[in-house]
Amino acid sequence: MKVDGKHFRSLWWNHDAGVLEIIDQRWLPHDMRIQQVGTMQDFANAIREMRVRGAPLIGATAAYGMALAMAENPSNDNIEKAWAFLEETRPTAINLRWALDRCRLHLQPINESERAQAALTLAHEIADEDVEINRNIGINGLEIIRDLAANKTTDEPVNILTHCNAGWLATVDWGTATSPMFHAHDAGINIHVWVDETRPRNQGALTAWELLSHGVPHTYITDNAGGHLMQHGMVDMVIVGTDRTTRTGDVCNKIGTYLKALAAKDNNVPFYVALPSPTIDWTVSDGITEIPIEQRNVDEITHIQGKTNSGTIESVQVSPDGSPAGNPAFDVTPKHLVTGLITERGVSAASAEGLADMFPEFQ
Amino acid sequence: MKVDGKHFRSLWWNHDAGVLEIIDQRWLPHDMRIQQVGTMQDFANAIREMRVRGAPLIGATAAYGMALAMAENPSNDNIEKAWAFLEETRPTAINLRWALDRCRLHLQPINESERAQAALTLAHEIADEDVEINRNIGINGLEIIRDLAANKTTDEPVNILTHCNAGWLATVDWGTATSPMFHAHDAGINIHVWVDETRPRNQGALTAWELLSHGVPHTYITDNAGGHLMQHGMVDMVIVGTDRTTRTGDVCNKIGTYLKALAAKDNNVPFYVALPSPTIDWTVSDGITEIPIEQRNVDEITHIQGKTNSGTIESVQVSPDGSPAGNPAFDVTPKHLVTGLITERGVSAASAEGLADMFPEFQ
Repeated sequence: MKVDGKHFRSLWWNHDAGVLEIIDQRWLPHDMRIQQVGTMQDFANAIREMRVRGAPLIGATAAYGMALAMAENPSNDNIEKAWAFLEETRPTAINLRWALDRCRLHLQPINESERAQAALTLAHEIADEDVEINRNIGINGLEIIRDLAANKTTDEPVNILTHCNAGWLATVDWGTATSPMFHAHDAGINIHVWVDETRPRNQGALTAWELLSHGVPHTYITDNAGGHLMQHGMVDMVIVGTDRTTRTGDVCNKIGTYLKALAAKDNNVPFYVALPSPTIDWTVSDGITEIPIEQRNVDEITHIQGKTNSGTIESVQVSPDGSPAGNPAFDVTPKHLVTGLITERGVSAASAEGLADMFPEFQ
Repeated sequence: MKVDGKHFRSLWWNHDAGVLEIIDQRWLPHDMRIQQVGTMQDFANAIREMRVRGAPLIGATAAYGMALAMAENPSNDNIEKAWAFLEETRPTAINLRWALDRCRLHLQPINESERAQAALTLAHEIADEDVEINRNIGINGLEIIRDLAANKTTDEPVNILTHCNAGWLATVDWGTATSPMFHAHDAGINIHVWVDETRPRNQGALTAWELLSHGVPHTYITDNAGGHLMQHGMVDMVIVGTDRTTRTGDVCNKIGTYLKALAAKDNNVPFYVALPSPTIDWTVSDGITEIPIEQRNVDEITHIQGKTNSGTIESVQVSPDGSPAGNPAFDVTPKHLVTGLITERGVSAASAEGLADMFPEFQ
């Protein structure tokens, strides 16, 4: 999407230099730094240090890493070596393994002399596929926003609340939850986005930066504020992303999503989840009992990173020395709180039947 | 309550020096600094700069300020002058005005020669009354915790979730929401407290400090985590404080309280509000439509204060330059989500009937 009027993806191939370039996201939202990823160690650092983050973006980055490996040494051994080297950079990222498996499967039958080019072409394809999926999520979500705008009796904007960063920075472009917003804004629909800061990691600051950079009106709020705003008619819809959706429509997403879904239900605010179909886990039925919730480092709770008066990025401790902290990173929103699932294929009910109808090939 | 085994109130009279002493709360939870409040300017600074905070504590502090004024000059003129001087330190604090009005009314009929002593005696009384109210809230809440403990079939603690700081630091002693917890812990009941950090001002860090200092097991969590914990049976009850409760039982409290009440309802977790009866507003029926919600400075959202690696207290900016922010400071939890109101007189249903039965003199 746009930054100061210029279009960016979160990664892109520099054809002149023959190298991948990324936005080093560690400095956002305060500073946008572009980095060339020119060595295998650069790739490992980019993924491990979360210079790139978000499942689709990690997958695409890894595919470019495999392309570099094939340019350096296209042997069968090196496919395996690069697979292992890249996979261990974030071993719990399912999309990373998925992309690497896909690369390996694609490259193995190809002659060594053609593997470098084939790997690069595949990386481009994986990146473009992500963009296309997200673009279609946006087109499908746009229609919901268009209907809400048409039903407005005042010149008030359509107020959309979102949680976390399911934005273009977490994908190659468009984002998932943000794609309908960017599409609506670009189509001239008057929208305004309430951006949850999303403690503990404050990914809302990235969402705010995306919206600010693209020119979409928005307001940055605490995670605590959404219920109050809904009680007072200040939210027309919620759109969030998801890390994993069950075959029955339960939605696992960033911690705190469930609380927003409860408030939406209590105030008759439609609650939508935007998702690329690969994040549907067809093996899971009950999200609350079956999905294990990652407990992350408690430093994320006790300390907060930001920009000091002097412009440096630093971390400060908020809670007292000696107080234990807990950091469950995700929660599960049960399907009965979800108005609809916005996929690249259309908007599905959050139910086993709805998803089965939309994706019959997985049944 | 206790700090390192020694009992403290949040303010106390130093009989030897003839001066009020307070805990300067600006440095908590990182540093406990004690300060003598020896001049009228000291009193103004203590209240205006939030060295003392919380309605009951501000009221008691102001009463000691009036006592100092009477020691300096017990004239009728000086009662008025001190009233105005102290009142303007935080003009929206209703308890401040209440305490000053009470002092004025009490002192006016008294001979000037006896006013200094009478004012000091009254300040002691106001402080002691607050302690007694909170002690009784604790005794009444203790019985609820005792029942939950008795019904435990394992040796797990009674898990209590709280939001914000309705603790002894916001009162003279015991706190309101924390009083049942301190009473239960002191009675040997095995409890554990989930402490919401309570963005944007992170008053949960003060609650964590209180519990840590008194020796009560607790865990500091994000405001987003509570719903997930309740889904998984990890919360036995919620106790929060309140800034204002309507005569019908709607509860106005720190922003985000409503979201916890929704999650409690959805998971059959009892949700209690601890309140001294003076915070019941007998003039208001519908909390959501009738109570104006203060919009506070957005710097509280965009910036966070904490302790740096070098031990200094600094503020860092989290959101991007240029993103607007919104900061509603309170929300209203409708009565149907409230299991009971723990008052100094007993536990009332959150209803007009329940409150009328408990406080017939206000009907």
